[in-house]
Amino acid sequence: MSIDPAAAAALGTVRVIGTGLLGTSIGLALRAHGTRVLLRDVSPTALSVAGNVGAGEPDPGGVGARLTVVATPPDVTADLVARALAEDPGTTVTDVASVKAGVLQAVAAAGADLSRYVGGHPMAGRERSGPLAARSDLFAGRPWVICPGDKSDPARIEDLLLLARATGAGPVIMPAAEHDIAVALVSHVPQVAASLVAARLQGGSDEAMSLAGQGLRDVTRIAASDPLLWAQILGANAAPVAAVLDRLRDDLDGAITQLRVLAAAGDGDCGRVGPAGAALAGVADLIMRGNVGRERIPGKHGGGPTRYAVLTVLVPDRPGQLAQLFADIGSAGINVEEMTLEHAPGHAVGLLELSVLPTSEAPLEAALAAGGWHVVS
Amino acid sequence: MSIDPAAAAALGTVRVIGTGLLGTSIGLALRAHGTRVLLRDVSPTALSVAGNVGAGEPDPGGVGARLTVVATPPDVTADLVARALAEDPGTTVTDVASVKAGVLQAVAAAGADLSRYVGGHPMAGRERSGPLAARSDLFAGRPWVICPGDKSDPARIEDLLLLARATGAGPVIMPAAEHDIAVALVSHVPQVAASLVAARLQGGSDEAMSLAGQGLRDVTRIAASDPLLWAQILGANAAPVAAVLDRLRDDLDGAITQLRVLAAAGDGDCGRVGPAGAALAGVADLIMRGNVGRERIPGKHGGGPTRYAVLTVLVPDRPGQLAQLFADIGSAGINVEEMTLEHAPGHAVGLLELSVLPTSEAPLEAALAAGGWHVVS
Repeated sequence: MSIDPAAAAALGTVRVIGTGLLGTSIGLALRAHGTRVLLRDVSPTALSVAGNVGAGEPDPGGVGARLTVVATPPDVTADLVARALAEDPGTTVTDVASVKAGVLQAVAAAGADLSRYVGGHPMAGRERSGPLAARSDLFAGRPWVICPGDKSDPARIEDLLLLARATGAGPVIMPAAEHDIAVALVSHVPQVAASLVAARLQGGSDEAMSLAGQGLRDVTRIAASDPLLWAQILGANAAPVAAVLDRLRDDLDGAITQLRVLAAAGDGDCGRVGPAGAALAGVADLIMRGNVGRERIPGKHGGGPTRYAVLTVLVPDRPGQLAQLFADIGSAGINVEEMTLEHAPGHAVGLLELSVLPTSEAPLEAALAAGGWHVVS
Repeated sequence: MSIDPAAAAALGTVRVIGTGLLGTSIGLALRAHGTRVLLRDVSPTALSVAGNVGAGEPDPGGVGARLTVVATPPDVTADLVARALAEDPGTTVTDVASVKAGVLQAVAAAGADLSRYVGGHPMAGRERSGPLAARSDLFAGRPWVICPGDKSDPARIEDLLLLARATGAGPVIMPAAEHDIAVALVSHVPQVAASLVAARLQGGSDEAMSLAGQGLRDVTRIAASDPLLWAQILGANAAPVAAVLDRLRDDLDGAITQLRVLAAAGDGDCGRVGPAGAALAGVADLIMRGNVGRERIPGKHGGGPTRYAVLTVLVPDRPGQLAQLFADIGSAGINVEEMTLEHAPGHAVGLLELSVLPTSEAPLEAALAAGGWHVVS
């Protein structure tokens, strides 16, 4: 959960190949505790930005690193892992690709030294990409899956545990195949489902879209993801994803059949015993199984992000209103931890969601009331 | 701003049948501006709670109401609408059911006076239900769809506009059939998709579930919805929902077929021209169509999705900084359309993403520079 400075110090020198969001964030986390970080990227601009935000120094070459992290797009990961193993004969090499079995197979096929390769998957990300979006705490409280191969040296696995702990992540060790089946279920299939729903919106009328609410926004948020990156990810994990989608399609077929029965029966028959009653029970059963599945999602990992108190304020859509609001909040000595200004369909008013530490909730309520602000939750 | 007190006053006396979340919230909103609200519920407990939280008084019977709102579960709505029309010959009757064509048909089939019935659908809700969860501002800033029938008297439609405005909602007039097609797309199909994904989680290992992240939480949030209520809603809108799901299934079938091709080809072939290359392109196309559909969800104030200019500012994590920042922005006469503050506990700065109209981008940059703020993108 918290960053372990001793782990960072123990790593000594780490090479990071690929200074996008993940690589730069790893550099920032390690630099915060004095690890020497050597950076490489095919893009001089990305490399320069990563260096300037404090993620490390350009790799001068010829330096032995205890650990090399390949943090590139997945389609070049295996090749760069094999090269990194060959170039620096003492280094442990890991990667951050979100599908693991294929990388391990490809590294093995390249004839690389598998004793020094240990795959990894830090399960953290942001909607923005690139080194400017990087943050030293990107991994704090998130799982970092470590997937040793059969030939991985235990001391190399230990290096991965140090890396995870140094960034504040929670290490989870599991075989690559098991990891890939797990992420098919909890990450890749949800991505496909979000895209399937969002793709339907292309055909919606403007009037229909004006009725969109928070449910649709939530279901389709990740549908905004990068198509080429996700095609690579889904392609690399094709069999496990297809296996889950097959079973999802069985449920979908059942739902469509039940809805056709209900459409044919009309409203009046739904309460009766018979085909319409059975179809209605079938639809309820799907929603109920969804309830049960949803409840299986565990709470935040390792204490993860802080629980904030949340208040929502109506803000008139005029210049100066936010200034007045934050003047009222600031003069009460209250620090806002997170906030989001939301849409208010059809109205010249915004909904501002303010998150504060639980101890600040009552003072914030008092400050808002004193300022005449309308708190809606 | 949002609630229109004149509208509430004009309504005079309103009867609310069903004191759950919606009925009680309507009562609270109307009572806040002095409307007389007469409450009914088959549950004496719910009726008592609604009265005690201030939503109105128990209906003594025999009082003529300008407007009657039927706010019951959907399976008894049409029957209660027809009864309300017959009982009080001067009243306008509306309901809050989330599917509209079936209610209108059933009210017509009951031989009721259709000139006084105007269907409605306030698009607001909470995860909790019942009168204790009610709030006077539940409808503030939300769409309230008004679905007049062919025979609805224009003066009765005007009563619905008053109701929407009195609760702070934004009235949207559309025919019942159009409404039902719209909510199939933006509400009912997303519910089915969320339940389909969540239902798969029943079969996941504990290790897999430990890797769940925000994406899965978002996609499946509404999968926690009430099975019996949702079976009624989906059953009442069965044909439009099935029509959208049919097309979604076509896309799903395509994705499964493409993933099977990719699984058979193995990693090495994905970049090539040929079946695997075409399958990869097909997967990318689905994600890209999802991108396009996702962008159709309207931006602020129910208009089309406006393209905003976005600037990200580093904000020191101290009380008063946001007040200073918004004072600088406000004094330049710039209106912030959307914003998000991200902040990590223990971190010295937050990242505030500001969205403004494109014409305000340069003035905002100038105002931020003059104020000494650090713009990072």
